[in-house]
Amino acid sequence: MPDLNRTIAGPGARTGAPPSEPLAVVSRNGHVESVHRGHVAVVDAAGRLLAWAGDPGVFVFPRSSFKPFQAVPIVESGVFARSRLGDEALALMAGSHGGTDRHAALANAILKRAGVDERALRCGTHTPYDEATAAALRSRLEAPSPLRHNCSGKHAGMLLMAQETGAPTDTYIDPTHPVQRRIFARFEELVGEPFVDPVPAIDGCSAPTPRMPLTTLARAFALLATARDHAGRPVEALATIRDAMRSYPENVAGEGRLDTILMRAVANAVSKAGAEGIHATGLIDRGVGIAVKIEDGSRRALGPAAVSTLAAFGVLDEPAREVLAAHAAGPLRNSAGLTVGGIRGVARLRKEEG
Amino acid sequence: MPDLNRTIAGPGARTGAPPSEPLAVVSRNGHVESVHRGHVAVVDAAGRLLAWAGDPGVFVFPRSSFKPFQAVPIVESGVFARSRLGDEALALMAGSHGGTDRHAALANAILKRAGVDERALRCGTHTPYDEATAAALRSRLEAPSPLRHNCSGKHAGMLLMAQETGAPTDTYIDPTHPVQRRIFARFEELVGEPFVDPVPAIDGCSAPTPRMPLTTLARAFALLATARDHAGRPVEALATIRDAMRSYPENVAGEGRLDTILMRAVANAVSKAGAEGIHATGLIDRGVGIAVKIEDGSRRALGPAAVSTLAAFGVLDEPAREVLAAHAAGPLRNSAGLTVGGIRGVARLRKEEG
Repeated sequence: MPDLNRTIAGPGARTGAPPSEPLAVVSRNGHVESVHRGHVAVVDAAGRLLAWAGDPGVFVFPRSSFKPFQAVPIVESGVFARSRLGDEALALMAGSHGGTDRHAALANAILKRAGVDERALRCGTHTPYDEATAAALRSRLEAPSPLRHNCSGKHAGMLLMAQETGAPTDTYIDPTHPVQRRIFARFEELVGEPFVDPVPAIDGCSAPTPRMPLTTLARAFALLATARDHAGRPVEALATIRDAMRSYPENVAGEGRLDTILMRAVANAVSKAGAEGIHATGLIDRGVGIAVKIEDGSRRALGPAAVSTLAAFGVLDEPAREVLAAHAAGPLRNSAGLTVGGIRGVARLRKEEG
Repeated sequence: MPDLNRTIAGPGARTGAPPSEPLAVVSRNGHVESVHRGHVAVVDAAGRLLAWAGDPGVFVFPRSSFKPFQAVPIVESGVFARSRLGDEALALMAGSHGGTDRHAALANAILKRAGVDERALRCGTHTPYDEATAAALRSRLEAPSPLRHNCSGKHAGMLLMAQETGAPTDTYIDPTHPVQRRIFARFEELVGEPFVDPVPAIDGCSAPTPRMPLTTLARAFALLATARDHAGRPVEALATIRDAMRSYPENVAGEGRLDTILMRAVANAVSKAGAEGIHATGLIDRGVGIAVKIEDGSRRALGPAAVSTLAAFGVLDEPAREVLAAHAAGPLRNSAGLTVGGIRGVARLRKEEG
């Protein structure tokens, strides 16, 4: 007999992975082929857990869903107002844009205000999320500039903040840089709890990125939606950022992408996705934040999981459901273009009894 | 209060997703960011379940791990021997190749024997798996031909079988085509159990693809490794296919890819990956088959999950561990090329007591 390892105590015993629940299912020929599990937390501005799936307290890296909060200091310092850049630039700073010519030009305009150019960006490069733009670059054999990185707006904003506050611009992504310290400290003040990690992680764009319970991310979006801090005090910068995102949803993602469509379709919603299967929504009217983590980090599951979570929470009216249908479920096509199956969201929420 | 949906009975209650266990973990800054769960079945040629993780009886689509069995009829009919194509072509028929110039030329050589050309292929097209080839095509603005599809060898084999047995070549991927009927019927005979679905699904390459318990896939690889059927009767074609795959592992996947490296590194192993997180290995010396399903279908988790499963079963000696290290774990790099975390396999196996 082979030398088998000892049995383990139960699922996740070795990795500490908490129990998750199916949020999206991939099927082929009418049968389940793959399952995307995950976690959901629905929290109000006061921090009450209203509903959940899986483990709402699971620690996550919010990744790009942290962007609206990374923009807070540039607004509160007055730097953004003095720049006269306008809300479309603020939405880009809080967004993960498609890297279109328009997005890149707007990021460049922010950089100009900071007196630098794209060589100052430390975000690196990737193929633009906007498919038509990516195809155009390919056809021109053109390597994408850092301006087309989905985070270039955020980075340009950080550079502008550094320049205008007399901080160095070459080290703006260092966790000890004044801009980063201010971003992290202000978030702790807003949510009323300190970060658990003494040193932040590094994001896909090389900026520092924190880790927090999913419930904290959900609450942060309830605070963004209601423009208040954890103690209920008004925070004008949150209203400014929220309204900029809602006014220019095409700069928060891009045409055809989830957050752009979601903010157009759902009244009073502000939303932002993040890498590795993160999605967060704030509902202004209800004063609630909804955070979703796809456990396996898959991008394909994000729309179905996020939309089915919103549906499960009763957020979507019939027109919104129709507009979001293409993100709630979709066909699985093969190499020859045939539809061979599909993906659909299956999120269900539990709520506290009584 | 919002109108919440009713609670569910437990994880997976709605989708019927059976309990899975962590097989690979993605970390950032030393903390878990994402978890890939899944299922493992280790079965001997007699069908005994020796070890497992998650639900070894979960139904899966073996996808490309079915390819060695799709090649059985062309060998048993004598069509392959009469073609004088050689074992490297048989390995390509059973493989998911990288679409290199050499792979494409070999697929084309099979088509020539069938008296057809690449226009007869129904697999569609995709960017070649071999990265250097993909980059070369991009730099030439060249669209990939169907010959570069990872399944072109399998399709060419099916076309050759159709041509040589007097069946139509234009409908060779129809589930009712004689070639497909023979493939499916012969597999049922080999494993001694009928397929559960009256109509097969459609694979990524448009060929019919079956669904079966993970234990059946594992047992099929035990039978492939031992070249016997479920009743212990010798099956020469299985030995021929197994040996072709082991002799030309570069045609089963490609340089740098999992199955190629695994078959070179592990004595007496025959292995084949499949889309949506499938991997199967047969061990000739032990008469055992090992099948892995990443529940969420992620490609990035496949190497770490498969290698850590083999390690957990005690299959890997120190040299094999070293060679496979790059597939067992790897760094997570961001847009700027910085290492920001990593992925590693964490599979653990349980075994029957006593």
